[in-house]
Amino acid sequence: MNFADQVCKVVEMKGPLVVGMDPHLELLPPYLLEKWLRERGNNLQALAYCVMEFGELVIEAIHDIVGFVKFQMAFYELLGVPGLMVLKNLVDRAREKGLTVILDGKRNDIASTAACYARAYLSGIEYPLERSIPSFWDVDALTVNPYFGEDGLTPFFEEAKKVNKGLFVVCRTTNPSAPFLQDEGREEKVYFKVARLVERMGEKMIGDSGFSSAGIVVGATYPEDLRMLRAEFPSLLFLIPGVGAQGGGLETLRFAFRDDGMGALVNVSRGVLFAYRESGKLDGRGFERLVRTKSIDYQERFRELQR
Amino acid sequence: MNFADQVCKVVEMKGPLVVGMDPHLELLPPYLLEKWLRERGNNLQALAYCVMEFGELVIEAIHDIVGFVKFQMAFYELLGVPGLMVLKNLVDRAREKGLTVILDGKRNDIASTAACYARAYLSGIEYPLERSIPSFWDVDALTVNPYFGEDGLTPFFEEAKKVNKGLFVVCRTTNPSAPFLQDEGREEKVYFKVARLVERMGEKMIGDSGFSSAGIVVGATYPEDLRMLRAEFPSLLFLIPGVGAQGGGLETLRFAFRDDGMGALVNVSRGVLFAYRESGKLDGRGFERLVRTKSIDYQERFRELQR
Repeated sequence: MNFADQVCKVVEMKGPLVVGMDPHLELLPPYLLEKWLRERGNNLQALAYCVMEFGELVIEAIHDIVGFVKFQMAFYELLGVPGLMVLKNLVDRAREKGLTVILDGKRNDIASTAACYARAYLSGIEYPLERSIPSFWDVDALTVNPYFGEDGLTPFFEEAKKVNKGLFVVCRTTNPSAPFLQDEGREEKVYFKVARLVERMGEKMIGDSGFSSAGIVVGATYPEDLRMLRAEFPSLLFLIPGVGAQGGGLETLRFAFRDDGMGALVNVSRGVLFAYRESGKLDGRGFERLVRTKSIDYQERFRELQR
Repeated sequence: MNFADQVCKVVEMKGPLVVGMDPHLELLPPYLLEKWLRERGNNLQALAYCVMEFGELVIEAIHDIVGFVKFQMAFYELLGVPGLMVLKNLVDRAREKGLTVILDGKRNDIASTAACYARAYLSGIEYPLERSIPSFWDVDALTVNPYFGEDGLTPFFEEAKKVNKGLFVVCRTTNPSAPFLQDEGREEKVYFKVARLVERMGEKMIGDSGFSSAGIVVGATYPEDLRMLRAEFPSLLFLIPGVGAQGGGLETLRFAFRDDGMGALVNVSRGVLFAYRESGKLDGRGFERLVRTKSIDYQERFRELQR
């Protein structure tokens, strides 16, 4: 099934919430961190086990009420190969539980190298083998960075298309310095040019839903941009980070949805994962119940915005 | 020792050649690929073993005559966790042999996430532990992508500075689509703004050599840009890909060096690694002797350009 169509189906069933699996070490439930450090010592393997148990508890708590998870690779790469093995386990677990998995790696390079990234995460290896080997990571969608321009993106589009998977090209980021480069441009701002490029390159990836499997990452911290991009690019799915911790307000998200309530996936990380920190339960025991409550809460609030 | 000073010392001793450890599967010596696929079957682990042996042979062949290796992460990520374990082994092997290791990952994100990448590859984890854990990867320098602007780069600079390591910020790429985004800009082109930003952010990383430990990646395919950037930014080290396969001519490299012959590291990947393919030895046996010959050859040609 076309990735964009799958997304729309899941949004309709469960809502547009994406739970961002960002295991900030300093925010992990202390009871869990202490347990693993005590058992395994002060090392990467202990941290990796901790992140693994944390992730499993989150997936278990949300899989029936949330459609999407996004793994930010940096948090797993931080823990070296042990961390990447945990990432692989959690990706598999999430997919087994029926979640759509977005890998947030923001990969980027020139053509032949970009093809390696695309094959690693989306499609797999064919040449020079007798039988092809499927992608090790095998996620549903990958984020990519557009700094190289069209020919750096082409291999990602080609490989994604081959296996009906998704892409989200970083377009408008949420951070204060975002305008430095993204607002440059003579006739049109860079981020706008990027959105236009993604629209054109993804034309042949449009499904029955009218959306393309190649979308863009757009922060909610710049509401006016969100509104303009939505008006100009009806076929692009928006992946929206920056809700909660990064300062984007919920109200501005209204602009991200089309009239039919479709078109945006909204990522919340800290606001869901670490809700226990505002609950008074300082050691974090039972944090997963709050993960579930918060997720239900966000889905409901998004549903109102979709109307 | 300051990273830039170390670079200058090594360039003086051995020359500016960086051997790009890019194990393109379809270019690997057939005798090696066939051996591992026969022994281990048609799977990622077999390919990883093959890439491992290939990399070990290259390092053994060049370590006394070459100062720098650059690992393009995409080729290792393609092979999943087995490939990343091989990357780790080769990075360690290269450093043991005295090579300066540049990891080409082009990582990028917002502040807190960028910090994870920087800690993963350069510095290590402190908080929330009793004793800090050193970086798993522990390379000498990392490439980063500037699409997020200054605050996305800051954590990379902070962590690199803390441990006297290096950064190369992607500035001007070698591919045909590079101008799409990099030549945008009202008063100044984006790639030029990026170079200026790196210069300012790296001011406190300048060593006795007069170079900063934060340099830029500049392709050799745009000679005029190379000349302008060299004139405008005397304190920036240039990491130059695109020599040989990507179409950059050797002659244009002259512009990359300062009058004292310093300031540029020149990466050659395919032109060194897969020289056996032009030698008539089709199965690739003994390819490492040609890797060595080609490396000596490139060092000599660069030495002439440095004059």
